[in-house]
Amino acid sequence: MLWSVDSLAQLLASAVDAAKKAGEIIRKGFYETKHVEHKGQVDLVTETDKACEDLIFNHLKNLYPTHKFIGEETTAACGVTELTDDPTWIVDPLDGTTNFVHGFPFVCVSIGLTIGKIPTVGVVYNPIIDELFTGVRGGGAFLNGKPIKVSSQTELVKSLLATEAGTQRDKLTVDATTNRLNSLLFKVRSLRMSGSCALNLCGIACGRLDLFCELGFGGPWDVAGGAVIVTEAGGSVYDPSGKEFDITAQRVAASNPLLKDAFVGALLESE
Amino acid sequence: MLWSVDSLAQLLASAVDAAKKAGEIIRKGFYETKHVEHKGQVDLVTETDKACEDLIFNHLKNLYPTHKFIGEETTAACGVTELTDDPTWIVDPLDGTTNFVHGFPFVCVSIGLTIGKIPTVGVVYNPIIDELFTGVRGGGAFLNGKPIKVSSQTELVKSLLATEAGTQRDKLTVDATTNRLNSLLFKVRSLRMSGSCALNLCGIACGRLDLFCELGFGGPWDVAGGAVIVTEAGGSVYDPSGKEFDITAQRVAASNPLLKDAFVGALLESE
Repeated sequence: MLWSVDSLAQLLASAVDAAKKAGEIIRKGFYETKHVEHKGQVDLVTETDKACEDLIFNHLKNLYPTHKFIGEETTAACGVTELTDDPTWIVDPLDGTTNFVHGFPFVCVSIGLTIGKIPTVGVVYNPIIDELFTGVRGGGAFLNGKPIKVSSQTELVKSLLATEAGTQRDKLTVDATTNRLNSLLFKVRSLRMSGSCALNLCGIACGRLDLFCELGFGGPWDVAGGAVIVTEAGGSVYDPSGKEFDITAQRVAASNPLLKDAFVGALLESE
Repeated sequence: MLWSVDSLAQLLASAVDAAKKAGEIIRKGFYETKHVEHKGQVDLVTETDKACEDLIFNHLKNLYPTHKFIGEETTAACGVTELTDDPTWIVDPLDGTTNFVHGFPFVCVSIGLTIGKIPTVGVVYNPIIDELFTGVRGGGAFLNGKPIKVSSQTELVKSLLATEAGTQRDKLTVDATTNRLNSLLFKVRSLRMSGSCALNLCGIACGRLDLFCELGFGGPWDVAGGAVIVTEAGGSVYDPSGKEFDITAQRVAASNPLLKDAFVGALLESE
């Protein structure tokens, strides 16, 4: 099947509608988390996550009944769905759940559509600071409707690096993480950790961040939306080893193309 | 001299006016940094910093000609001014300069007033996401006019920690930083680094963050505004060793009072 510019624009518009509706639910919950007890907070996260995923899936299934769907919540409940060549919506209804619980304003809805396993439509929406990132393969990337592009930085030493401490707390993983940070800190300007993989990718896309790397995140829903936004903003998404990006591998690095070789070199040296 | 509630409210109003005017300059520069060459970026930071400090100092000197003034830019140009018991405005015209250069939206104006060396009035304004934090000794703390308070968290393991990688890149400092992170990561829920000391303090004040620690930041201007906002939001500001906070020491920790002992213990174990 061929996909016209018009039909891709329509798919994007549907995803934006779904993301904005889910964003309303997230915004409401975000300002409530401080007013419930801890047990309630956990419930609120689960409820918000589930309500947003249901809303997004229902919205898109109604419009595209033949498409496939992969979601964080559904996967948690029903196990892994294999990614095929069919048009597949890959959804993280609430990226940045720790931020959500704490009221730290870096949370988002992430919706990606793969066609032939290639990220083709991406929407990442932060409803708290009202930033909507969008991208369609071949059609550019946008923040609140304005075109965005990756930074033009060429030197690691002047680059702002984003990464995350992850959720695993075994000694092997924590030591590997802080050893990597130690090695990278000598080579870059500074380090940011904001707690959302999808928003880190969008930070690369709009040039706020120069370098991003994360290992061991939750699943393809963390990167499916952001990946096409980065590439359409002129950036590169790749495996931290420098090999081709695999959306199912739970490993991602991103930057402008000019920094890729130096960043991969620095990442390999940091192992 | 005694300070009435009315006169403190007036001092706060003057500081808010100055911060909002400086915020306009920062907002304008923030969206320009991407359109200038690197040499130009550095100039733009210096120009913005200087223009904001001049504006704030002129505004406040006009209203309070007998007060003293300490600013990051003036100190850089003219050397250290000793903090006395006189009413002293301590100003960071642009906290988060790396974020400013990169377009990462965590930048702010920080204005603090000490009386008898005690932080008494504090204003921290992020003009990009339009968040105004204010506090007056004995009068509470506010975000955009609404009362704020620190988190009620009592367990380190459920706490969100903010810290920074700093700007020093000698081996001793970087090793100490990543060793500290390694030790702390086993004890807290997760880690955020957003690149502004004043906004980290405000994050503690409004309960977005549970724990904050930074060593070796620029000077009293990074903490003078935020310190009173934290204490007025029910929080504690202290030296990372657990000793009394010294505004001139370039060392700060903050949390709610319930977490203080456990956090100090974890920080001492991380040395």
